[in-house]
Amino acid sequence: MHKSLLALAALSLALPATADAQRYDARFGLPPGAHDEIAWDFLEGLTTEIGPRLAGTPDEARARAWAIEWLRARGFVNVRDEPFPMPGWQRGEERARIVGDNAQPVVLTALGYSGATPPEGITAEVVAFASIEDLRAAPAGSLTGKIAYVGNAMTATQDGSHYGYFGSPRRQGPGVAAQKGAIGYVIRSIGTDNDRMPHTGSTTWPEGVTPIPAAALSSPDADQLERLIARNDAPVRMEILLTPRMLGEVMSGNVTAEITGRDPSLPPVLLACHLDSWDQGTGAIDDASGCAIAATTALRVAEQGRPLRTIRVLFAGAEENGLWGSAAYSAAHIDEPIAVGIESDFGAGRIWRMDTNFAQTNPDLFARLSRAVARYGVLPAANQVAGGGADLNIVRDQGGALVDLQQDGLRYFDLHHTANDTLDKVDPADMAQNVAVWTAVVQVLANEAGSILGTATPAE
Amino acid sequence: MHKSLLALAALSLALPATADAQRYDARFGLPPGAHDEIAWDFLEGLTTEIGPRLAGTPDEARARAWAIEWLRARGFVNVRDEPFPMPGWQRGEERARIVGDNAQPVVLTALGYSGATPPEGITAEVVAFASIEDLRAAPAGSLTGKIAYVGNAMTATQDGSHYGYFGSPRRQGPGVAAQKGAIGYVIRSIGTDNDRMPHTGSTTWPEGVTPIPAAALSSPDADQLERLIARNDAPVRMEILLTPRMLGEVMSGNVTAEITGRDPSLPPVLLACHLDSWDQGTGAIDDASGCAIAATTALRVAEQGRPLRTIRVLFAGAEENGLWGSAAYSAAHIDEPIAVGIESDFGAGRIWRMDTNFAQTNPDLFARLSRAVARYGVLPAANQVAGGGADLNIVRDQGGALVDLQQDGLRYFDLHHTANDTLDKVDPADMAQNVAVWTAVVQVLANEAGSILGTATPAE
Repeated sequence: MHKSLLALAALSLALPATADAQRYDARFGLPPGAHDEIAWDFLEGLTTEIGPRLAGTPDEARARAWAIEWLRARGFVNVRDEPFPMPGWQRGEERARIVGDNAQPVVLTALGYSGATPPEGITAEVVAFASIEDLRAAPAGSLTGKIAYVGNAMTATQDGSHYGYFGSPRRQGPGVAAQKGAIGYVIRSIGTDNDRMPHTGSTTWPEGVTPIPAAALSSPDADQLERLIARNDAPVRMEILLTPRMLGEVMSGNVTAEITGRDPSLPPVLLACHLDSWDQGTGAIDDASGCAIAATTALRVAEQGRPLRTIRVLFAGAEENGLWGSAAYSAAHIDEPIAVGIESDFGAGRIWRMDTNFAQTNPDLFARLSRAVARYGVLPAANQVAGGGADLNIVRDQGGALVDLQQDGLRYFDLHHTANDTLDKVDPADMAQNVAVWTAVVQVLANEAGSILGTATPAE
Repeated sequence: MHKSLLALAALSLALPATADAQRYDARFGLPPGAHDEIAWDFLEGLTTEIGPRLAGTPDEARARAWAIEWLRARGFVNVRDEPFPMPGWQRGEERARIVGDNAQPVVLTALGYSGATPPEGITAEVVAFASIEDLRAAPAGSLTGKIAYVGNAMTATQDGSHYGYFGSPRRQGPGVAAQKGAIGYVIRSIGTDNDRMPHTGSTTWPEGVTPIPAAALSSPDADQLERLIARNDAPVRMEILLTPRMLGEVMSGNVTAEITGRDPSLPPVLLACHLDSWDQGTGAIDDASGCAIAATTALRVAEQGRPLRTIRVLFAGAEENGLWGSAAYSAAHIDEPIAVGIESDFGAGRIWRMDTNFAQTNPDLFARLSRAVARYGVLPAANQVAGGGADLNIVRDQGGALVDLQQDGLRYFDLHHTANDTLDKVDPADMAQNVAVWTAVVQVLANEAGSILGTATPAE
């Protein structure tokens, strides 16, 4: 009896899918197994032939040359390399171990712009804080001669919203610890995995603070350190060797390229990403995927006929080390208006929400964009205000229009800034969904004659 | 209409679970959320306080001392450290990179007993083989001055059966390549993950062959190498630096301990595992889990009353580097009969099948064991012949009885022999299931007065 009820229910569920096979028509969304061969060609080519491309290095310069050749071969015009200076930083040796009765190695990696230890390393007591709030509450001078450790409990979220707050032990923690006298600083990696791979990423130093050695432990090593502290009455001591170097001023560069529109007098649509990566992975999710999506979108829109507006892609340099490329691009081009900016820099997870900063002021355009993306499983979020990605400084500086095509980042921070950021982590079908959604959006925007921001009075 | 059918069906499914809550009674299997605190105490303690414990090192000696203290504190008697000599090997630096137009680092790790490169490394053309079969087919002398690369396509399987065949590029490949003139050897890691973490493991050298540098690339690095070879007309060249060292004769040791039985004249039940681990992880799945399971089982059986037979645990030393402990134990104790041997050395995945080598010759005992394990989701496999684990040489050498409690190894080779083999990878509930099944089995075996192997004529 129960069985037959179930069978009936199952049948009733199965029927629509069978009867509605034609819903996978291209007009209705993305076919299963979709693959965008242009985007994949970019992604696989850059990550394979260049590999890691740390900002300001010959590797990043090779990546620019590679990208320029790719863009030209694919039919982009006005392909430019726009160099800019930045402070160079190079990773060195990195080793650490617990010393004493529980002697054992631990796995860590230097944070970008970390200071170096002496060549023989440092050995000191570890003082542990559960969060940066606890570190901030430590009395002045209380860390003198010690290594500060700060944990975090970053949780995997689809919108990646934990990264801002839980990233502060990396971004601000080293400076706070140094100001309290610490001679070294380690964090639990800013990540959501439990792999034995530490997450690097840039840190910052307050004016006048001398950089100290600052590194991230992998999550299992942070667990181990915390357990050893809990098990020992005596302080746990750690030896750290880090030999990164500041290189002085080095050159990075932004690459731009265009699909020119029918009306060159109209401000262009700007599609941004960053070309540089951290030095340990091949930057497949961060951010070769984004550049693949941005560049392929321009080509896919052009396939449907020359757009009204020019579509410009910006492959920013030196995003990872401090958004140097975004700042340089804005400074150089602030007087050239951008119609609207979109950026991809969150891997290749599927887009699930569209935010803009003009839903209220240009409801007609927002409605047309909504219709364009809804078929792909993208929620048009009229009440979310797009802030734009890191490489869209120019649009923010101009007070311009922004679209954020929010990607599923549930597993992004498992890989982010680790050696594990490699091509095999990208799902081609997810990549194809990104290109399809971007193409649908940019098709509308690049053929919009009027202001993108619009002029309607925002609703109450 | 469909909705109400579904609701009915769902309701009908929910009812049995609610009505049958008492089926989780201990008599009927394992309660959800089960946790064995003794097993976890061993596992967490050893992996945290000692960490990595490579055979023949002071770390392995510390692990023996730790284990002896733990065993004595838990009430084991006749706790012994039985030292034996073995050829020592120590990892050194390990770095490699693709050179030339696509210059980039790759991640690898030396295989156990790998030879070393000169201090400046080696740089040579890579000759790639899809499998060891292809390597074996290469003409004599055809690898002179080259680096041989061998891939593999090991697939994740619940029974781990791919490891034997697909492990041969690691175990035998270096010797084959050296005999054909190769100056270096790299493989795709013998694993089933796509993490940027290479899998080490011992290799062997045929008589008279001088060891060459031999290493495993992580799976993403193997992908990268294969892609670069496919993309380049010119040979791909690789630079490798490996500085491992042979240490001559060093000391390892086996630890044994007993719960003495009521009748000391009866041969003991032997529960085996290995205490050593590779040097990069903390050996949580390989094989602290196994020792936790074996030792805890002895205690859990003793809790139910002193068993008829003595239960002996063997924490073997130096399993990873060549089963030196297993050989030494058999050599030293070959004249002391073992009633039956069981080993745990496949992580802490749940046991799903019981194999023996006496199902046909002692069907009554097999039936009683079957009844003991069936409630835990364990299939009594009357037609599978147990071969025993690596540390049960003594039982094989005596022609004795064996039980293999097969664990779910679907994800075991994601972690095996990598830095990622750490405590966080063990599920406490899975560990508890292992102890419960082992306890059920050993409770029967340790109270069996007659021969375990039995005397019945095997069925046709």
